[in-house]
Amino acid sequence: MSVRLSNTDEYVSLLDKYDTWLFDCDGVIWKGDSMIEGAVEVLNLLRHRNKKVVFVTNNASKSRRSYRTKFDQLGVEAHVDEIYGSAYAAAVYLSSVINLPKTKRVYVIGTSGLEEELQNEGFFVLGGSDPADCTLEPFSLENFSLDPDVGAVVCGLDQMITYTKFSKAFQYLTRIPNCHFIATNEDSTYPTAHGTLPGGGSLSAVLRYAIGRDPVCTGKPQQVMLDCIKAKVSYDPTRTIMVGDRLNTDILFGQTGGLDTLLVLTGVTTENDITGPDASPIVPKFVTNSIGDLRVISTKAN
Amino acid sequence: MSVRLSNTDEYVSLLDKYDTWLFDCDGVIWKGDSMIEGAVEVLNLLRHRNKKVVFVTNNASKSRRSYRTKFDQLGVEAHVDEIYGSAYAAAVYLSSVINLPKTKRVYVIGTSGLEEELQNEGFFVLGGSDPADCTLEPFSLENFSLDPDVGAVVCGLDQMITYTKFSKAFQYLTRIPNCHFIATNEDSTYPTAHGTLPGGGSLSAVLRYAIGRDPVCTGKPQQVMLDCIKAKVSYDPTRTIMVGDRLNTDILFGQTGGLDTLLVLTGVTTENDITGPDASPIVPKFVTNSIGDLRVISTKAN
Repeated sequence: MSVRLSNTDEYVSLLDKYDTWLFDCDGVIWKGDSMIEGAVEVLNLLRHRNKKVVFVTNNASKSRRSYRTKFDQLGVEAHVDEIYGSAYAAAVYLSSVINLPKTKRVYVIGTSGLEEELQNEGFFVLGGSDPADCTLEPFSLENFSLDPDVGAVVCGLDQMITYTKFSKAFQYLTRIPNCHFIATNEDSTYPTAHGTLPGGGSLSAVLRYAIGRDPVCTGKPQQVMLDCIKAKVSYDPTRTIMVGDRLNTDILFGQTGGLDTLLVLTGVTTENDITGPDASPIVPKFVTNSIGDLRVISTKAN
Repeated sequence: MSVRLSNTDEYVSLLDKYDTWLFDCDGVIWKGDSMIEGAVEVLNLLRHRNKKVVFVTNNASKSRRSYRTKFDQLGVEAHVDEIYGSAYAAAVYLSSVINLPKTKRVYVIGTSGLEEELQNEGFFVLGGSDPADCTLEPFSLENFSLDPDVGAVVCGLDQMITYTKFSKAFQYLTRIPNCHFIATNEDSTYPTAHGTLPGGGSLSAVLRYAIGRDPVCTGKPQQVMLDCIKAKVSYDPTRTIMVGDRLNTDILFGQTGGLDTLLVLTGVTTENDITGPDASPIVPKFVTNSIGDLRVISTKAN
């Protein structure tokens, strides 16, 4: 049973209890292109109290650098090394978790943001935005030469997906022994301003089905993302809290990683999802309406 | 336990026992672009004895008409109404099995052969080879208007697959109540002259994963194909045999449909697959090395 936060003392005690705050972004800090009311003040308050702030997002289409421009546009202070996206997590997974040699190349289905993260970690990338792969010309194996240095295929959401990319990724995964298969997230769909579209997990489903094995997934709720954070940020798990709006990604991610969790109701999850007869089995430690609720602390503190 | 055919009497008895002969093509009649030795003579012999001959293929990229040109090129007598491909089966399923009104439109992921079969059954098709959908420009729902007359999405192998096609198909399947979801086959891969590529089933895996439900599949071993044959050909199931080279498609297809089955070893299945320690649980009624083995009958008959 979750603790429903409602009064100033509870918020003050929450603030005292945790030194490191992991935040999901969309549905928590902002919604689409609008800030959640009070979020900026609360983030500033946390920084003022020397709390460590980390942003953890399943958005794999942007590099951390380009994701930061979103923070800038919305007037939220954020530093590149505080942002953990699943594209970055995929790159760190390869470089620091499984120590794939930098002489290995990575075949990419995904955006230039994903390519950028992999390049930043020192890998040479193939596919992705390469015009030779962004083509609707028929693909024939007769003209394809397998690059023996490819050591991994990373698949994320790719608006420029082609049969050529699926086919080349398939060749690497089936013809190169121990070629790693990474998916930046398992999301079946993703929300846009005008409706829902197939997500990154749907595209990797092609390779999953064709080769008959599952990828290592670097997005929440998988722990690869937390491994990446651990590799770069030092934190005490008993004094760390994960704040999110989705039970099956954010909250599950925190719980699996041994962290306490705070659910906000400004995003996907509704009151009914946690209290109704069909309530989720995933139960956050704390629930509050909005991250903005923590503003009461500043009154108390000043 | 299968009956292993080897002598003339057994082949003669087989010929006497069955009036309708269903044949898979690739691996049975031909292999790639080469005929299986003796296949033409055996097919001629069957016709000479007034046997009904039906070709049943999971190739969904060609219409029956264009598939017939393959028979012509290889010097095999075949008539359009004897050929049942999974593209045709998808069209007949919509028109004759579920009686989708002809005022309904069909959104296609697939080739012009698939479009042709749907059009032949009287449907207006969207997607497929339409240049507006064969584009790598980013897809936005802002500029998309849902055609309320779409009653089905049919997905097959499509070398010109795009995110736009996946996205539009997804809209129809999720926003139009009771929109039918058809896949022309479940093949994870398919063989080409130069190696293996992702199959039609891999592309429909995107929609399957994104919408969270399975399509009706019109390829073997699914019985929709047999329903289509039944709708057009009259045959006595006790005097009908399915001849194929694949246990999990051809032989299973025949068995599920209550037909006797003959496995040939000129295609995918090897001796080891049926007799080794890891032999398949799918056991054909008869096994012979090649369809060409039936030539012995002509000696006996003449």
